[in-house]
Amino acid sequence: MANSNGDFEIPKTCKAGVVMNEGPDFKVVVEDVPVPEPGDRFSLLTPPGPNDVLIKLNATGICYSDIHYMLNDLPIPKMSAFGVRSPGHEGAGVIVKLGSNVKNWKVGDRAGIKPAYDACFNCELCWSAKETYCDESTQIGLQFPGSYQQYVLSPARYTQSIPDGVDDFTAGPIMCSGSTIYCSLKESGLKPGDWAVFPGAGGGVGHMGVQLAKAMGMRVVGVDGGFEKKALCMKLGCEAFVDFTKVEDVAAEVVKICDGKGAHGVFVTATNASAYAAAPMMTRISGKVMCVGLPPTGTAIAGADPLLFVGKNLHVIGTKVGSLLDTQKALEFAARGLLKPIYEVYPLAKMPEAVAKLQSGQVAGRLVVDFNS
Amino acid sequence: MANSNGDFEIPKTCKAGVVMNEGPDFKVVVEDVPVPEPGDRFSLLTPPGPNDVLIKLNATGICYSDIHYMLNDLPIPKMSAFGVRSPGHEGAGVIVKLGSNVKNWKVGDRAGIKPAYDACFNCELCWSAKETYCDESTQIGLQFPGSYQQYVLSPARYTQSIPDGVDDFTAGPIMCSGSTIYCSLKESGLKPGDWAVFPGAGGGVGHMGVQLAKAMGMRVVGVDGGFEKKALCMKLGCEAFVDFTKVEDVAAEVVKICDGKGAHGVFVTATNASAYAAAPMMTRISGKVMCVGLPPTGTAIAGADPLLFVGKNLHVIGTKVGSLLDTQKALEFAARGLLKPIYEVYPLAKMPEAVAKLQSGQVAGRLVVDFNS
Amino acid sequence: MANSNGDFEIPKTCKAGVVMNEGPDFKVVVEDVPVPEPGDRFSLLTPPGPNDVLIKLNATGICYSDIHYMLNDLPIPKMSAFGVRSPGHEGAGVIVKLGSNVKNWKVGDRAGIKPAYDACFNCELCWSAKETYCDESTQIGLQFPGSYQQYVLSPARYTQSIPDGVDDFTAGPIMCSGSTIYCSLKESGLKPGDWAVFPGAGGGVGHMGVQLAKAMGMRVVGVDGGFEKKALCMKLGCEAFVDFTKVEDVAAEVVKICDGKGAHGVFVTATNASAYAAAPMMTRISGKVMCVGLPPTGTAIAGADPLLFVGKNLHVIGTKVGSLLDTQKALEFAARGLLKPIYEVYPLAKMPEAVAKLQSGQVAGRLVVDFNS
Amino acid sequence: MANSNGDFEIPKTCKAGVVMNEGPDFKVVVEDVPVPEPGDRFSLLTPPGPNDVLIKLNATGICYSDIHYMLNDLPIPKMSAFGVRSPGHEGAGVIVKLGSNVKNWKVGDRAGIKPAYDACFNCELCWSAKETYCDESTQIGLQFPGSYQQYVLSPARYTQSIPDGVDDFTAGPIMCSGSTIYCSLKESGLKPGDWAVFPGAGGGVGHMGVQLAKAMGMRVVGVDGGFEKKALCMKLGCEAFVDFTKVEDVAAEVVKICDGKGAHGVFVTATNASAYAAAPMMTRISGKVMCVGLPPTGTAIAGADPLLFVGKNLHVIGTKVGSLLDTQKALEFAARGLLKPIYEVYPLAKMPEAVAKLQSGQVAGRLVVDFNS
Repeated sequence: MANSNGDFEIPKTCKAGVVMNEGPDFKVVVEDVPVPEPGDRFSLLTPPGPNDVLIKLNATGICYSDIHYMLNDLPIPKMSAFGVRSPGHEGAGVIVKLGSNVKNWKVGDRAGIKPAYDACFNCELCWSAKETYCDESTQIGLQFPGSYQQYVLSPARYTQSIPDGVDDFTAGPIMCSGSTIYCSLKESGLKPGDWAVFPGAGGGVGHMGVQLAKAMGMRVVGVDGGFEKKALCMKLGCEAFVDFTKVEDVAAEVVKICDGKGAHGVFVTATNASAYAAAPMMTRISGKVMCVGLPPTGTAIAGADPLLFVGKNLHVIGTKVGSLLDTQKALEFAARGLLKPIYEVYPLAKMPEAVAKLQSGQVAGRLVVDFNS
Repeated sequence: MANSNGDFEIPKTCKAGVVMNEGPDFKVVVEDVPVPEPGDRFSLLTPPGPNDVLIKLNATGICYSDIHYMLNDLPIPKMSAFGVRSPGHEGAGVIVKLGSNVKNWKVGDRAGIKPAYDACFNCELCWSAKETYCDESTQIGLQFPGSYQQYVLSPARYTQSIPDGVDDFTAGPIMCSGSTIYCSLKESGLKPGDWAVFPGAGGGVGHMGVQLAKAMGMRVVGVDGGFEKKALCMKLGCEAFVDFTKVEDVAAEVVKICDGKGAHGVFVTATNASAYAAAPMMTRISGKVMCVGLPPTGTAIAGADPLLFVGKNLHVIGTKVGSLLDTQKALEFAARGLLKPIYEVYPLAKMPEAVAKLQSGQVAGRLVVDFNS
Repeated sequence: MANSNGDFEIPKTCKAGVVMNEGPDFKVVVEDVPVPEPGDRFSLLTPPGPNDVLIKLNATGICYSDIHYMLNDLPIPKMSAFGVRSPGHEGAGVIVKLGSNVKNWKVGDRAGIKPAYDACFNCELCWSAKETYCDESTQIGLQFPGSYQQYVLSPARYTQSIPDGVDDFTAGPIMCSGSTIYCSLKESGLKPGDWAVFPGAGGGVGHMGVQLAKAMGMRVVGVDGGFEKKALCMKLGCEAFVDFTKVEDVAAEVVKICDGKGAHGVFVTATNASAYAAAPMMTRISGKVMCVGLPPTGTAIAGADPLLFVGKNLHVIGTKVGSLLDTQKALEFAARGLLKPIYEVYPLAKMPEAVAKLQSGQVAGRLVVDFNS
Repeated sequence: MANSNGDFEIPKTCKAGVVMNEGPDFKVVVEDVPVPEPGDRFSLLTPPGPNDVLIKLNATGICYSDIHYMLNDLPIPKMSAFGVRSPGHEGAGVIVKLGSNVKNWKVGDRAGIKPAYDACFNCELCWSAKETYCDESTQIGLQFPGSYQQYVLSPARYTQSIPDGVDDFTAGPIMCSGSTIYCSLKESGLKPGDWAVFPGAGGGVGHMGVQLAKAMGMRVVGVDGGFEKKALCMKLGCEAFVDFTKVEDVAAEVVKICDGKGAHGVFVTATNASAYAAAPMMTRISGKVMCVGLPPTGTAIAGADPLLFVGKNLHVIGTKVGSLLDTQKALEFAARGLLKPIYEVYPLAKMPEAVAKLQSGQVAGRLVVDFNS
C-alpha cells in the first residue's frame, strides 16, 4: 500500500511458500522470509542489484514445473544448490522499489515475472525476441527466488509490464502457459482463415490456444476427451471438436473437418506420445506440427518417416515459453477480453493444498494463489 | 534437324530404351518405337493432345527411381498398367511439334522434362509454385512414357524451358536432383552468411547442394566419407569437411566448425537412418533439418524427442522435387556457371549398361545417355 | 434451368447490357445478343475455345471501371477495337457448357468471373499467385465480352469457383473490390492485434476492408466523413472512427488512437490526393502505407521525402485486384458470414439506370444487376 | 598498451579532435582532453556509468554527418548544448576499463562504436533488432562525446564487438555506411540470383553495397558516372554498369540488362532527386526501391503515382543505419574478406585536414584517422 508520498512502505519480512525437505517427500510451508533489497543477489550471471526492481506480488500461479523443482526429479541441480527456497514463475503485482540505475520503471507500476529471470541482451537471440534461448538465460524459481515469495527481485529489463484491463489472477497464467501458446501460434505462421487444431484443447495450455487462435481469425478444432471438455472448447470458440474417447481414427476425422485436406497447423498441447504420433497425419500439404506439450523425456518422438516429410512438405517445429514480446502480445489480447484463462484462486494459507492438488493431477485450468487473502 | 523452313523433319519411329520383363529380372533394351503425335494420350487425367508439345530429346539422365519403377518394388502400380514401356524423367532436347492450342512455345525452342508430368493449375498449391504436390500431379516415366524414349510428349504448360548456356547433358540431372536440392535450400529460409551442412555432400544430390549453397552466399560444410569425397567437396566450395569414417562424433565436430553453435541448416542428402539421427544434434537454436534423401521406407525417423524441439526451437522440414519455378531458378544458376553437375555420358546403345551400373551402386555423380551417339 | 438430364437448355440468344455510342455520350441499352459457343474467341492471346466454359450469369456488379471503358477516357484502346460491346467484370452464375478439353469443371457448378480474363500460367508471376501481373493477362469487359452479357465465355483455368453460402449478389462485388482489399491486406503482412486504418472506410472498397481486417483479428480504425459513414464503420467492426469533416489533424488523431505510436498499416481506399499525403504521417515505425484507391492519373503521389522513409522505416506498397487465390480466400470469408458487401439490386431492365447512377457518383456500396428479374 | 597484469595503463588525458567555433566557420583542432571514467555521464537518458566500458580507439572514420553537427546546419540542438565537443560515430579500438556492473566484456576485447549511443532494450523495436528506431535511442558524437576523442565511454550493451580478421581502419566505415547498406539489403528481401541495382554504386555507401550484394549471391548492376567509377564497380563484382553521363535513359538500360523485366531491387545510395525519380522505373513487377541516400530535406520524393504502385506491385522502403545485429553481420562478411571498404588514412595531426577535405566534397571512399600515428 502506498503512503501519502506515493511510496510503498516495505516491510522487513514477507510471506513465502517455501519448500521443506526437497525431494520425493517435499512439503510447502508458508512462512516469513526477509524482504530482499535491490542489490541482494544470488549469482554472478547477471548484472547486480542497481539494475533490479523489487516487486510486491498479489498473485502467483502454480505450475507443474514448480513441483518438478521441488521433487528434484529432473537431471538439473537442486533449488537449494542456488540457495533458493521458493519456486514459482507466474507472478503479478506492483513495483515497490527501484535499483539505483533503473530508469524504465516507476514505483507503483504493475509488473510481473515470467519463466526466465534474465538474459544477456547482447546476442543475436536476444536481439531477435528469442531471448528465452539465450545462453545466459537463467531461471527464476530455481536459480533465483521465485513467485511463491511475496516480495521478489527482478531485473528491470526482464520484468513484464501488465497492461490495464488484465487483473493479477489473469496475468499469472498468461506469463507462462499463455505466452507459450502465443509463441507457438506466432511461429507457426498460420494465417487468418487457416485451420488450427489443438490436441489437448481442454487443458491448461490448450484452452488458451483455442481462444488466441480464434482471436487471430483462425478456424479452430479442439481434440480432447469427454463431454465437459467438448462443452468448454465449443464455448471458447472451436468450430468443431473431436472426442478421442469416441472417435476411432482421430486424425482422419480432423482431416475430414478441415476441408478433407487436413489442418494448416496442429498444436500439440497434450503431453502424451500418441498425440505426437497422430499429429503428422492431421496436416495438409505444407502443414505444421507445433511441439508444445512435453511428454516424459524419452517417451515420445515428434517426427515421422522422412518419406512422409518429403511427400507432404511436412514441418515439425518446437517452441518454448514466449519471450517478453510474446508475453506482452498475449497480455494485450487479454486486455481486449479475448483471452481469459480459467483458474481457481487459493488463499495464501492454502498454498500447500494447491500444490498438493496440482501434484495429484486433479486440476482443470490453472491454480492461482492470492497473497492478499 | 530443322529443314529449310525451320521445321523439323519428324521420323515415324525413334529409338527408346524400353523395359522388358518388368520386375526383379527386368532388362532394358533399345528399340524402335513409334514417334507419338500431339493428341495421342494415355490417360484422361490431363487435358488432351492439342495442349501438348512433342520434344526430341538429346539426352536423358538415369535416376534410381527409374530402376524402382522397372523393378516394380514400390507399393504402386506397374508402368505396364499405364501402357508405359519407357521410364525416365530427366530429359533435355528441342521442341519439334506443337499441339494445335499451344501458344507459349515455338518449334526449335530448347525444352526438357522433369519429374511430374502435369498438374491442375487450378488449386492453391499450383498457384503457389508447389504444383508438385497437386492432387492431380501425374508422373512421367511411370504413368506416361518417359525420357528413355527419344521423342516424348509433354503438356505445353508443364514443359521446362532450358536457358542458353546450359547444355543438354547438364540440364538433365538438374531437372531432378538439382531442382530437388534447390527447392530444399529455398524452403529452408537460410540466408547468405549462414552455415549450411550437407550430410552426403559428395553424392548425386549433395554435390549440387554444395555448389548452390555456395552460390547463394552460404558457408558450406560437407559431411561424407573418404578422401575423394573430401577433395571433391572442397573443390566445389566447402569451407570445411567432416569425414565420418574418421571422426567419432560427427555432430559435435559440425557444431564446433559452425562457431561452436551449430548449423543454421542441415540438408540430409544422405539416405541412411544414422544421418537422420545425427542431424538434429548439428543445428543451432532455431536451426533447420531439411529432409531430402529417402531411406528405405520405415527404416528411419526424421525428428526427435519433443523436448529437443522445444529446447532448441528445432525445425524439421521435408520437400520433394522442385517445381517448374525452382527448376528454372536452378537452371539459371547453371547458366551462370555456378552449378555444374558431375555426370558421365553413355551412348544410346549402352543405355542398358548405364542402367545396370546404377543398379549396382557403382556410380559417382549422374549417368546421362546421349541420344545422338 | 437444368433439364431432367441435369443439362442446361441453352438459348440461341440472351440479354446483354451493351454500350452504344462509346465515348462521352455513351448509353447502355439492354438487347438480345447471340449466346457464344465455347470455341468462339476474339483473340489469339489465349488458348482457343476447347479450354473454355460457358457461364450463365445470375448477377453482375457495376464498377466505375466499366464507365471508364464506355466513356473511353483512359489512354487505352476502345472496347470496340476488340469487337466488344458489353463491359463488366463482376459476374456470378452457373456453368452451362464445357469446352471439349475441360476437365476441372462440370455443368451446374457455380462460377464467376473477376477482373482479368486469363494469364499465361507459365511464368514466375503466374506460379506465384500474382497472375494478375502476368504480361499476357488480358481484361474481360474490355478485350473480351464482359459480365453485362448474361452468357459469357471464360477460360476454364481462369474461372472462379463460388462456394456454398455465398449468393450471387454477394459474390459479384467480392470478385472485384473484395478481392482487391483482401490482396492488399495479405500483402501488408499485418498480424492479428495490429492496427489497420482505412481512409475511405465507408466506401465500396473500404467497407469490405473493415470487415476483412476485423475477421483477421486486427484492430480497425475508420477514416471517412459524416455521421452515416461513422455509424456504418462502427457497425462493421471499427474500434474507432475519425471524421475528417470534424477533425483538423486526421493523422495526429489516428496516431493517438493507435497507442500514440501510429498504425501498423494504412490502407488508402480513398481516391484523393490528400488521403495519400496524410497516410505516411499515420504510421508507426516500420508501418505500411498500402496503395489501393486510384486518384486521377498524375494528381497524387504515394510517397514522401526519403528522409521520412529512412527515419520511420516507412514502407509504401501498391497492389491491384486479387488473384484467383486471393478471390477464393475472400469468398471463403464471405461463406463464413464474415464479409458482407453492401449492395443495391437492380433488375436487368434498369441496368442503364444503374450505370447512370454510378456515373453520377450517388452510390453507397455496390450496384448489382439481377439477370433474372 | 597492456601492462604485465594484462591491465591497460590509462592516461589522465588523451588526444581528441574537438570543434571550435561551432557553426558555419567551425574548425577542428586536436588537443588534450581528460580521459573519461566509467561513471562520468552527460545525460540522464541512459543508465549511468557502472554499465559502461571505456574504449581506447585506434581509428575513427570521418562522416559527413559529423560536419553537419559541427556546422550546426540541421534543425536539431547544437553539440555544445549537450556539453559535447567531439563528434564521430565510427570508432574502432580496444576496451581498457569496465564499469563495475559490466559482465559481458573483458579488458583487451576489441570493440567499436557505431551511430547511436544506446537504446532502451525494453520495447518491441529493441527486441526486434530495430533498436536504432527506439524512442530512447541517443546519438553519439552529438549528445555524447564521439569517436574524434581517443578514449570514449560506451554502454556495455551498445558496444560493437569487432571480430578477428577485420582491422580497425576497415571496421570504422563498416560501423556506419557498411551497416547501413547491409540493413537495406536485408530488409529488401532480395534473394540470391536476384538483380540488385545501385544508383551511386561508386560512392561511399554504394561501393560496399556492391560487394555485399555480390557476396549474397545477387547479380549486381552499378549506376554511376565516369570511367573510374565503372572500373571500380566492375572490379568489385558488378555484372554490368550504366554510366549516367553516357546513357540517356538510364532506367530503360537497367531494365534491359535485368532480363528485360527490370531489377528486383534498386538501392538508392545516390543523394539526388533524379536518382529517386528514376528508381521506380527500374524495377520489375513486385520490385523494391530501397531508400538509403539522403538528399537535402525537401528536395526529393521517394514514391510515384499510386497508379504505378498498383500497376507494378511497387514497394518503396526506407531503412537507416544498421542495428547491432546488422553491423555484426556486416563485420562477419568483412572478416571473410568479402567486404573491403575503400579508405584513406590520415594521421591524428591531420584530422583537421581530413575534415576539410570531406567538407570540400573531394573524397572517393572513406577517410579514416589513425590515433596512433
